[in-house]
Amino acid sequence: MTASHPQQLRSDFLVSSLTGSIQNRVAELAASGISPRLAVVVASDDPAVTSYADSKRRKAKQLGVEVTLVTLHDTSSQAAFERAIIDLAKDPATHGIMIELPVAKGLDASKALELIPANKDVDGLTAANLGLLAQGHEDQAICPATPRSCILLAEQMAEVVGATVAVVGRGATVGKPLSTMLLNRHATVTVCHSKTPDVGAAIAASDFVFTAVGKPHFLNQAMLQPHHRVIDAGISYIDGKLAGDFDPAAANFVRAYTPVPGGVGPLTSILIFDNLLRCIAIQGHA
Amino acid sequence: MTASHPQQLRSDFLVSSLTGSIQNRVAELAASGISPRLAVVVASDDPAVTSYADSKRRKAKQLGVEVTLVTLHDTSSQAAFERAIIDLAKDPATHGIMIELPVAKGLDASKALELIPANKDVDGLTAANLGLLAQGHEDQAICPATPRSCILLAEQMAEVVGATVAVVGRGATVGKPLSTMLLNRHATVTVCHSKTPDVGAAIAASDFVFTAVGKPHFLNQAMLQPHHRVIDAGISYIDGKLAGDFDPAAANFVRAYTPVPGGVGPLTSILIFDNLLRCIAIQGHA
Repeated sequence: MTASHPQQLRSDFLVSSLTGSIQNRVAELAASGISPRLAVVVASDDPAVTSYADSKRRKAKQLGVEVTLVTLHDTSSQAAFERAIIDLAKDPATHGIMIELPVAKGLDASKALELIPANKDVDGLTAANLGLLAQGHEDQAICPATPRSCILLAEQMAEVVGATVAVVGRGATVGKPLSTMLLNRHATVTVCHSKTPDVGAAIAASDFVFTAVGKPHFLNQAMLQPHHRVIDAGISYIDGKLAGDFDPAAANFVRAYTPVPGGVGPLTSILIFDNLLRCIAIQGHA
Repeated sequence: MTASHPQQLRSDFLVSSLTGSIQNRVAELAASGISPRLAVVVASDDPAVTSYADSKRRKAKQLGVEVTLVTLHDTSSQAAFERAIIDLAKDPATHGIMIELPVAKGLDASKALELIPANKDVDGLTAANLGLLAQGHEDQAICPATPRSCILLAEQMAEVVGATVAVVGRGATVGKPLSTMLLNRHATVTVCHSKTPDVGAAIAASDFVFTAVGKPHFLNQAMLQPHHRVIDAGISYIDGKLAGDFDPAAANFVRAYTPVPGGVGPLTSILIFDNLLRCIAIQGHA
């Protein structure tokens, strides 16, 4: 047991390097008369959701990116929700659109999501963009930010190309697209989830364990191996404090891990803006 | 060693049951004035490709389905290829469109594929349909026929839901969509491929082994376990004779397997027409 954790890989350095690069590219776009604009649709009165949007606004300000915040409420209709997306889809000054999740009960986020044009889909979660990943055409796609963040961090730890990896969780926003992107990188991929009888056995042979479940500290030492490198995309709360899937009690047991907070999350936040610049390029502005 | 192979699961019975069901549904559509029509685009002078299209025509005739055969040649331009698809996409009497693969060198099949509207995509291979699978929305998608065939056969062997499975091969037409569809069925899925250092180790713990590589008899007894159920979607040739990925020398070693020929292939052929009827339903005709 040591006081410091050499196994711990924070994302700060990647976040600052990307922040600088995005600021430069935004300045270049501004010089050619393009003012990058992200539309954030909040369709909920949940203060947690509003706070995500606020933090996006602060980040945007730091980067020189304009934000249109569209707010709907728990009482809003699906029609009003969809109309908001359709208007933003048509607006040539809006380069990227995202729906802040979760939306209010009674609203259908997945139906609204499909109204976002593929080339304004900064989250990379529309069927069109996920389908391009599945075809192996990442070069034509907007790749979802959380899987991108996971892979960037894993690459800091060791070679991902051709590695043996496990993905815990099979959701449409992280687990599934991440496993597809890892296959595109020649990894041998095992995907396990809540219905897997023995997660520890399923992940034992893997070099990397990517986890995106959202159960605080469920991935504990009993399930892990000393050779494991853990990339933690889990987000949950213990007593109001942010927690990941990885149990920090195993910090000195595994070979490497990303902490929560300070790992996948902050890098994901900045990658949304990198995706916005990619949208602008695909739209033919740059 | 026995003369018969009780482990062998042929697809004949599923093919005849589906044939009858499709004939009935085609007759019902005819009674309401709809004549199901599949367009097959052949963009190659390769006699193998032409023969695939011919066998589709024969199957269609048996089912009462009309076929439009559009033929392009090794010398045809990409523009002519794409124009053919665009015309079929617009034609209201054409309910399904498929491109017979491979196309001539110099033609880009994946670009032409994306011109097929999602609701006429009988092969289920456009980004739109693969994206719906990735989102877990199979109910809204046209699912690719080969993965459907594999899962139907596996279900005849044992419970697929929640099973531990391996997929060998990660292509866009079989391996990737199959692994997504298996995840949608709560399976724990390991995907391995040509870059996997030890395929035998990667698949050892799986109940089912789905293989779609196209290397004749490469999956041999040394890689397999007696508890394996093998579903073979491989298509290749040995001395001009059709061969699968599974080595028949291991027939009495594994728990069950589908033969080539007589397994996944014939069921896939009939599922294309089942997909055509699904296209007609999605288009709002039935």
